[in-house]
Amino acid sequence: MKKLPKLLLALSALAVAAGASAQVKPEDAIKYRKAGYSYMSWNMGKIKEQTIDNPAAYNKDQVLAAARTIAAIANSGMGALYVPGSDKDAGGQKTRVKPEFFQQQEEVGKIARAFNAEANKLAEVAAGGDVNAIKAQFGKTGETCKSCHDKFRMKD
Amino acid sequence: MKKLPKLLLALSALAVAAGASAQVKPEDAIKYRKAGYSYMSWNMGKIKEQTIDNPAAYNKDQVLAAARTIAAIANSGMGALYVPGSDKDAGGQKTRVKPEFFQQQEEVGKIARAFNAEANKLAEVAAGGDVNAIKAQFGKTGETCKSCHDKFRMKD
Repeated sequence: MKKLPKLLLALSALAVAAGASAQVKPEDAIKYRKAGYSYMSWNMGKIKEQTIDNPAAYNKDQVLAAARTIAAIANSGMGALYVPGSDKDAGGQKTRVKPEFFQQQEEVGKIARAFNAEANKLAEVAAGGDVNAIKAQFGKTGETCKSCHDKFRMKD
Repeated sequence: MKKLPKLLLALSALAVAAGASAQVKPEDAIKYRKAGYSYMSWNMGKIKEQTIDNPAAYNKDQVLAAARTIAAIANSGMGALYVPGSDKDAGGQKTRVKPEFFQQQEEVGKIARAFNAEANKLAEVAAGGDVNAIKAQFGKTGETCKSCHDKFRMKD
């Protein structure tokens, strides 16, 4: 990328304002954000398994713990992990983020807010214990994941 | 290891009983558990930064979100990620877990319960907003992390 994208500047400013994360190296930022997404993925898989693939195995406590983990990670300020220099592989850490992610600040924010809202709702619904409601909300949450992957994640 | 350790059998039985995670491949189990620890590490770092290294930058919402993330991951059933075959590198995924982890079931359980209790307490204390109390509870939580690393994680 030829210009420092606006999003990077905005995220960097946020990090400085927060007095935190400004020192996260690009390679660490990539490592941590991939860890967050990976751990959410495992927990999404558990919810899928117990509500869609094999609902007979539904365990309320496990699904609730999984949903709370996803919501907590969604709420943990992952935006601070998109530091300057983390738009491409760094220090041996590979990233599949597309350059567009750093250029379309408005669209990224919209998707991020939608994801957070659906993930928080998933944790609420999981606390209720209605498997069909959880399945429906799982679908909505997954759609927000997919909308970001489709737009901003490279295929391989 | 020459014999299938007791812990593996116990964890495997748990996973089957839960109707979940029994199908997690060793390489995926290693990837996901490392992701969980890595993401907790980033969040521990944020709490350390805002309560010990630079308390002037303390931001209640950020520290609370970080503490809740650590607690949620601690409560997410990571034991299911210690499947048979994940006691050594698998499918390109490296692990630093020592063989002793799979042999000392009682000690592992004791440390895991202590960690969960301290992490949950950290989230409670973070909600209170008393920086000194958070700092003290951060220390207690970190000690439980360290006790497992010292006993069950290889140095490199």
